[in-house]
Amino acid sequence: MSIQNTILLLTETVEKLSDPQTLKGLFHQHREGYPLPSSTVLEEIVQLSRAILFPGFFGKSQVNIQTIQYQIGVEVEKLSYLLKEQILAGLCFSEDYETKSGMVDLKKQARELASEMISRLPKVRSVLATDVEAAYNGDPAAKSYAEILLCYPVLKALTSYRLAHELFLMGVPLIPRMMTEMAHSETGIDIHPGATIGSHFTIDHGTGVVIGETCVIGNHVKLYQGVTLGAKSFPLDEQGNPIKGIPRHPIIEDDVIVYANATLLGRITIGRGATVGANTWILEDMPPEAKVFKK
Amino acid sequence: MSIQNTILLLTETVEKLSDPQTLKGLFHQHREGYPLPSSTVLEEIVQLSRAILFPGFFGKSQVNIQTIQYQIGVEVEKLSYLLKEQILAGLCFSEDYETKSGMVDLKKQARELASEMISRLPKVRSVLATDVEAAYNGDPAAKSYAEILLCYPVLKALTSYRLAHELFLMGVPLIPRMMTEMAHSETGIDIHPGATIGSHFTIDHGTGVVIGETCVIGNHVKLYQGVTLGAKSFPLDEQGNPIKGIPRHPIIEDDVIVYANATLLGRITIGRGATVGANTWILEDMPPEAKVFKK
Amino acid sequence: MSIQNTILLLTETVEKLSDPQTLKGLFHQHREGYPLPSSTVLEEIVQLSRAILFPGFFGKSQVNIQTIQYQIGVEVEKLSYLLKEQILAGLCFSEDYETKSGMVDLKKQARELASEMISRLPKVRSVLATDVEAAYNGDPAAKSYAEILLCYPVLKALTSYRLAHELFLMGVPLIPRMMTEMAHSETGIDIHPGATIGSHFTIDHGTGVVIGETCVIGNHVKLYQGVTLGAKSFPLDEQGNPIKGIPRHPIIEDDVIVYANATLLGRITIGRGATVGANTWILEDMPPEAKVFKK
Amino acid sequence: MSIQNTILLLTETVEKLSDPQTLKGLFHQHREGYPLPSSTVLEEIVQLSRAILFPGFFGKSQVNIQTIQYQIGVEVEKLSYLLKEQILAGLCFSEDYETKSGMVDLKKQARELASEMISRLPKVRSVLATDVEAAYNGDPAAKSYAEILLCYPVLKALTSYRLAHELFLMGVPLIPRMMTEMAHSETGIDIHPGATIGSHFTIDHGTGVVIGETCVIGNHVKLYQGVTLGAKSFPLDEQGNPIKGIPRHPIIEDDVIVYANATLLGRITIGRGATVGANTWILEDMPPEAKVFKK
Amino acid sequence: MSIQNTILLLTETVEKLSDPQTLKGLFHQHREGYPLPSSTVLEEIVQLSRAILFPGFFGKSQVNIQTIQYQIGVEVEKLSYLLKEQILAGLCFSEDYETKSGMVDLKKQARELASEMISRLPKVRSVLATDVEAAYNGDPAAKSYAEILLCYPVLKALTSYRLAHELFLMGVPLIPRMMTEMAHSETGIDIHPGATIGSHFTIDHGTGVVIGETCVIGNHVKLYQGVTLGAKSFPLDEQGNPIKGIPRHPIIEDDVIVYANATLLGRITIGRGATVGANTWILEDMPPEAKVFKK
Amino acid sequence: MSIQNTILLLTETVEKLSDPQTLKGLFHQHREGYPLPSSTVLEEIVQLSRAILFPGFFGKSQVNIQTIQYQIGVEVEKLSYLLKEQILAGLCFSEDYETKSGMVDLKKQARELASEMISRLPKVRSVLATDVEAAYNGDPAAKSYAEILLCYPVLKALTSYRLAHELFLMGVPLIPRMMTEMAHSETGIDIHPGATIGSHFTIDHGTGVVIGETCVIGNHVKLYQGVTLGAKSFPLDEQGNPIKGIPRHPIIEDDVIVYANATLLGRITIGRGATVGANTWILEDMPPEAKVFKK
Repeated sequence: MSIQNTILLLTETVEKLSDPQTLKGLFHQHREGYPLPSSTVLEEIVQLSRAILFPGFFGKSQVNIQTIQYQIGVEVEKLSYLLKEQILAGLCFSEDYETKSGMVDLKKQARELASEMISRLPKVRSVLATDVEAAYNGDPAAKSYAEILLCYPVLKALTSYRLAHELFLMGVPLIPRMMTEMAHSETGIDIHPGATIGSHFTIDHGTGVVIGETCVIGNHVKLYQGVTLGAKSFPLDEQGNPIKGIPRHPIIEDDVIVYANATLLGRITIGRGATVGANTWILEDMPPEAKVFKK
Repeated sequence: MSIQNTILLLTETVEKLSDPQTLKGLFHQHREGYPLPSSTVLEEIVQLSRAILFPGFFGKSQVNIQTIQYQIGVEVEKLSYLLKEQILAGLCFSEDYETKSGMVDLKKQARELASEMISRLPKVRSVLATDVEAAYNGDPAAKSYAEILLCYPVLKALTSYRLAHELFLMGVPLIPRMMTEMAHSETGIDIHPGATIGSHFTIDHGTGVVIGETCVIGNHVKLYQGVTLGAKSFPLDEQGNPIKGIPRHPIIEDDVIVYANATLLGRITIGRGATVGANTWILEDMPPEAKVFKK
Repeated sequence: MSIQNTILLLTETVEKLSDPQTLKGLFHQHREGYPLPSSTVLEEIVQLSRAILFPGFFGKSQVNIQTIQYQIGVEVEKLSYLLKEQILAGLCFSEDYETKSGMVDLKKQARELASEMISRLPKVRSVLATDVEAAYNGDPAAKSYAEILLCYPVLKALTSYRLAHELFLMGVPLIPRMMTEMAHSETGIDIHPGATIGSHFTIDHGTGVVIGETCVIGNHVKLYQGVTLGAKSFPLDEQGNPIKGIPRHPIIEDDVIVYANATLLGRITIGRGATVGANTWILEDMPPEAKVFKK
Repeated sequence: MSIQNTILLLTETVEKLSDPQTLKGLFHQHREGYPLPSSTVLEEIVQLSRAILFPGFFGKSQVNIQTIQYQIGVEVEKLSYLLKEQILAGLCFSEDYETKSGMVDLKKQARELASEMISRLPKVRSVLATDVEAAYNGDPAAKSYAEILLCYPVLKALTSYRLAHELFLMGVPLIPRMMTEMAHSETGIDIHPGATIGSHFTIDHGTGVVIGETCVIGNHVKLYQGVTLGAKSFPLDEQGNPIKGIPRHPIIEDDVIVYANATLLGRITIGRGATVGANTWILEDMPPEAKVFKK
Repeated sequence: MSIQNTILLLTETVEKLSDPQTLKGLFHQHREGYPLPSSTVLEEIVQLSRAILFPGFFGKSQVNIQTIQYQIGVEVEKLSYLLKEQILAGLCFSEDYETKSGMVDLKKQARELASEMISRLPKVRSVLATDVEAAYNGDPAAKSYAEILLCYPVLKALTSYRLAHELFLMGVPLIPRMMTEMAHSETGIDIHPGATIGSHFTIDHGTGVVIGETCVIGNHVKLYQGVTLGAKSFPLDEQGNPIKGIPRHPIIEDDVIVYANATLLGRITIGRGATVGANTWILEDMPPEAKVFKK
Repeated sequence: MSIQNTILLLTETVEKLSDPQTLKGLFHQHREGYPLPSSTVLEEIVQLSRAILFPGFFGKSQVNIQTIQYQIGVEVEKLSYLLKEQILAGLCFSEDYETKSGMVDLKKQARELASEMISRLPKVRSVLATDVEAAYNGDPAAKSYAEILLCYPVLKALTSYRLAHELFLMGVPLIPRMMTEMAHSETGIDIHPGATIGSHFTIDHGTGVVIGETCVIGNHVKLYQGVTLGAKSFPLDEQGNPIKGIPRHPIIEDDVIVYANATLLGRITIGRGATVGANTWILEDMPPEAKVFKK
């Protein structure tokens, strides 16, 4: 093929790829001056949050308890700015926002949601503190809190989930899902931001864990790698499409342990203190303190 | 240990590590001026491809439907250049290329293969559009196409696979495998570029899915996390080494669903419309519309 | 909410987040001038090690067998420096180091440990060479050693594990675990640095594999994706906390194969040449050459 | 000094430096969401402009005459965006803009000014083409146009000046001065963006050249290093401050040559075809074709 | 030349260049763990200082008067750390430090000097405020304080000089000179850190200005481009080497103006209120209010 | 202006700027796969050369006399590669290379020239050592050799010049000029790579110094800032263009001193040991030991 033909083929391909017909649903035209959802910025948001929540373990600077307020002040201000930007980016994808509110309102809304998120950080830190404790107590291989914070994938996944869950509760579109998917990619733990999870929660190893959108998990629950808390099936609407938003994932009460690769499906309830054995397949309720093992 | 001894030990170790004897099979001497396979460049190739296929969702620039041709033009030209370089790098690893063709031919061949790949991009986009549709229809938690494109690991894995598969079909060595392994690392979904996969394909959650080299998958198939489409065993040659290239993975016909953690092994056929339950272990053919669940 | 109120809320939140009370156990005050454990630096350590062990496959420079000593010399010197820094960072987390040794000793200790690690690199390379061979012989889809080195997650995980294991044996705190967790994130393969693993070891696909702290694995062993070599339960001390350091994971003898998603728990012994089938659940010893498959 | 005292001293200094009293005139509080003038962005603007005006000489990409429209299209669109941002940043420093126009107007004005600037690029290129020609013809050491474009400081200074001059004519505050000062730093040539300069202009070597705000320079003029076209003195207002905006720099007619380190001061006219010798000091008009040399 | 010969030539050259004989005086062996003087770090020190002294004009973050304490706190802490490191690097070059003080003392000394420098920042800001005022009042082309801060080379040169001068007074070796040379490179203004300069000082345009080590300059002095305040000659010692440290540069009293390209040499005194014309050559004292112009 | 019109204007401008007519002489179409002259790469070449010539003063790594061979080996190999690339880029601009030699020859020629340049590095270091000595002895403000190497612009300018001069002698087009212009921008010292300069050469302060293409400078010569060694006039050919390559700049014999802002023009000879005073204007020969001062 001559160089001339190569160029011709290239320009023809560019034309095809720029044809609006071939771009239907795959192209995002966005408003002038409005930010895009950005995994790079979300990564920065996660890094900043880790640095604020666990100073000295994350973040580049060497911190000092006497001057830590400067450091946290700057980080919180930066986080607030980035959150505002990404929340705004998310709001632009909400299908009905244009009818509900004008453009100026959208920016105001983003600022207020970012502020609200910032004000919830102390609460997020205090519940994550219980998760650190649970991970440490639950693993004989753990030598220190530092090891939990710096090495354990569950802490990374939970930090992202607990932040994303607050944004989800505040009604921010798209952004919470992007955040938990980034943690999924990093840790192999897939927690939907819509799930509700109590304190002192931990997951050992973690790869392959799936926690669905409508799960409700109590306090002091422990999962192992490969556990699925999923949906069994879901009703379709008249067009044959799945109906969105129906409770369809398990309820796990306090003090439950679920061992590796167990699969729990549907809106079932696993009673307080129950034990679910490895590689089991659970489709029905289990009473409190029950134990199921594979035969 | 004195500093002097530390330096002595260091220089002795350097000598050992530089000894050609210890480098047998672990060292790649390459030709002057020839590119190396590079995961950094392949990462850039994947990012560029995402930006070309789904403009406005990926890529740094804010795009505009009236001027998108400029953007796509530049990206396609860049992609073409990087592909040519990496294809050439791959060709250098092909054991018998030196006997088959001189050096100049190799560069010419790389340019032509890169051009061919570019010309297949419109087709790749149109089949990925069916995958987006399948992911959206298959998950009640999905709120929009944007969410599928920006969050769902399956789309990332399939974009890389569908590009790599074309390169595999064109006979490019090494590079397609590197591309799908990078997606494996990012998503936990391991699809061999040699597998054949139809339209409207989707995988929910995805972590732990394995799709082997000689799999053949029809249209409208859906898998869940942890599903293995693997080989049961493989014949050895007279030296006791596995014989390469024999069909040894499942054939999955249209409209099949395979639930979480099912393991399907060997050259079996799962008939059209069949359902394979979670945590099952399948070593034999299933007729159309069959359903297997774990007891 | 007015801008004034937004700022007020921000400063109040900063105050709460800087309150030493809320930081208990979550804050790491570190000594002036001492390095922090850094995943960025550890990433660099892993990249450098790959470049030293497999020159021409990893590392940025184009290498030449006649001048490779320069390249390896510079890389080993850099690695030595970075290791010294991260080992020192790790030592600072050892709870009782202050009573055992003064500050100057700590730096001396770090330098000696780094030197010791450097001197073990040739041994690490020679055992990794057997792993490359095992991966190539064990997979009909593998076309060349280059493909193993450049694509196979198992090689990445084992390189990090074999380096981390040496540091673990030398008593370096925290750093070995960070290294294997980084490989876990990249490959989905979770190997504790305390595990003992023989030569010619390989794992196919790999996602979801867990190898616990006290595992002992012989030579010529092969695992598939999703295999767990875990603990069944662990004794608690009088306060109800797990007792650390007790042997609690399987012993796998030479020539064993464990197929996908098998779960092996507790201090059991799988005898030489045994075969463990996919999706099985093993809690007891298996004699040599035994075969267990799921019914 | 104890570490405790060091921290005390640091916090006291921070307090002093944050005191609004000490910040009067030295602090720029800016409007939420509005861009800052940024030398980094202006540097990018200059680099982009060079790539657009002289493709193949500047800019990272390898260009091709058949596909250059893609490249220039993307660069012009990017330039347009960055210009809009920096023009807006500049407008925020205009003292009276708030009374003249509301906030929305300011953004609209910035977009229109950026568009206007873009539309003048072809004209800027054509006059720079004459400067390239003049530099080549004026220096026996110049081997090619490429050498002029890639090496000669005068071309760098003139590219920035000719762009900045257009922005100056359009009334953009601050930004044009920042652009010419950046060129001053790079080349040692200080041209005020307010100066008027004809075609075929060149400066040899260039270091130390100063061309003041109200200079008027004809066509085919050549300067050497160290030449000052400055003001002699300037009238003060009643408060003793210099009155801004009065014509106070030389008029240089067509075909004039000014040799090294000549100093020309005040609103004098150097007639067409005149020659000003090196190290001279000129305070009065020179008739056409006159020659002045140092005795 | 064959590739083999090329490599031979390369290795021979490396040997020659590594020969300690050829490195005498050109090689800096430094102490393990001690920092090097680094123009990159000094650049960062200058950028941080600009951001602290003129917040909102320099520095990346958007600042807010209510929360500026966080920003300045973090910047001052970072600056303190970097200064300590570079001061220590400088001390290592002081020829006689080893006899004067042990290694631990050196680090302590660096920390105290850095603290002292930090505590002088408020004073440096207040004198720079007078320089801004002088630059604004002295140039009819200046439209605002912002223009002075963002564009005028004199402000950049003076900020570096005034910081470096404090370090010079504190006896820090090497570092002050590196800082003023970096400003020299950026602005063409060469001020030795040993010079003494009063308040309300300004330089117009600036390229080519030289201010020698023992200059003493009063308040309200103004220079133009190309002015040299240099030494006429300097006495040699018995070996024929220049005697270091003797006062040998001009004293410029308050309210003096020196026009472009004037050269003032030797320990002369230019009396209060004097005017020195452009391109003059001054070797003798001038009485107060005197005026010298070129004839 | 509507957004629609803005886009229209943008696309029209892109068309004009892409019109080949407007690009004549301003566009560089280059050969596929051939490198471009790149100031970024040349900057890296200069940094590498400084690190090789003065180890421990430049370069990022901390060096050690026992292992310096590794460091220099890697740097020389990298330098060799980058030089080959940039020399090739330069050769592509040589007007007549296509007739003289085919494409393959060009690459071979570039490799040989790069090798030749590498082999001249030891000589370059030894003459630069004399320049360091001259700078130290010539300035009472200089405290150490380190200060000369790290701070003095003359050393930076001479390092670039002495490297560029060797490339110039070897006939490499364009690249030597780019290198000295980069040093000109950094230091204000403009030395043409064609000039011939002996040992023990120094320039104090340096800003504004110009040394023309055909200058010949002996040993132990010292210049001050603002000195021009230029051409007086140059003969034109029949088309009125300057004739290139004629000797037209001064010859400066051994032991000459030229003080600040002196202008020496034309092919004159300044005899051994002569002194040229500040601000003088010299158009004629000066005998040995002569002294000229401004009256």
